[in-house]
Amino acid sequence: MNALGKHVLLELKNCDPERLNDLDYLKTTLMQAASVAGATVLNNSFHQFQPQGVSGVVVIAESHLFIHTWPEYGYAAADIFTCGDSVNWEKASKMLVERLGSGNHSVMEIKRGVLDIESN
Amino acid sequence: MNALGKHVLLELKNCDPERLNDLDYLKTTLMQAASVAGATVLNNSFHQFQPQGVSGVVVIAESHLFIHTWPEYGYAAADIFTCGDSVNWEKASKMLVERLGSGNHSVMEIKRGVLDIESN
Repeated sequence: MNALGKHVLLELKNCDPERLNDLDYLKTTLMQAASVAGATVLNNSFHQFQPQGVSGVVVIAESHLFIHTWPEYGYAAADIFTCGDSVNWEKASKMLVERLGSGNHSVMEIKRGVLDIESN
Repeated sequence: MNALGKHVLLELKNCDPERLNDLDYLKTTLMQAASVAGATVLNNSFHQFQPQGVSGVVVIAESHLFIHTWPEYGYAAADIFTCGDSVNWEKASKMLVERLGSGNHSVMEIKRGVLDIESN
């Protein structure tokens, strides 16, 4: 089944709360995740919330990565959206799980743009 | 079932190809979609691909909206990720479908951060 995009949804539970509230740490982590995945980074935007929580997105040539964190619950939602086969999302996913110290995570992969055509 | 985040995935097919390749139009559309939804825009980042296609993200205080387009297939993937109940994602979703001239669309809503706690 051909699809234009691959969308990976990570549910990261039981994470280290301090890391989930550290914007610099999260930005470095997402940028490195994009790098190990072989993605080309175009831009990024991170925001610190008060009293806690961080949202961040890394725009890559092959689509994007984002993260939203809830330190108070030890939880983060992270997505990796890619098109083509050049990005190794498994490597990025593994790095995110490890770096956030998630003790309980799940991964869901969704095909986006499943059309009645020949695509990648 | 309580969830920290609400993640709406839009599959927009049979769209107007010209609109899908018009960065300014798409940026305006996503910013207006965030506005009608009652979201607070923090930042945005859009990128034009060659020979065609646009990726864009609007970071909002309540999370984000993004779009990735494939004009050659008349297809766009758009997501609306929100936390809390203040953002009316149905309005944003309806605006995106109309503005892109989608003749065939589907909507999937995913709960993110379903924890064994009392949350919003």
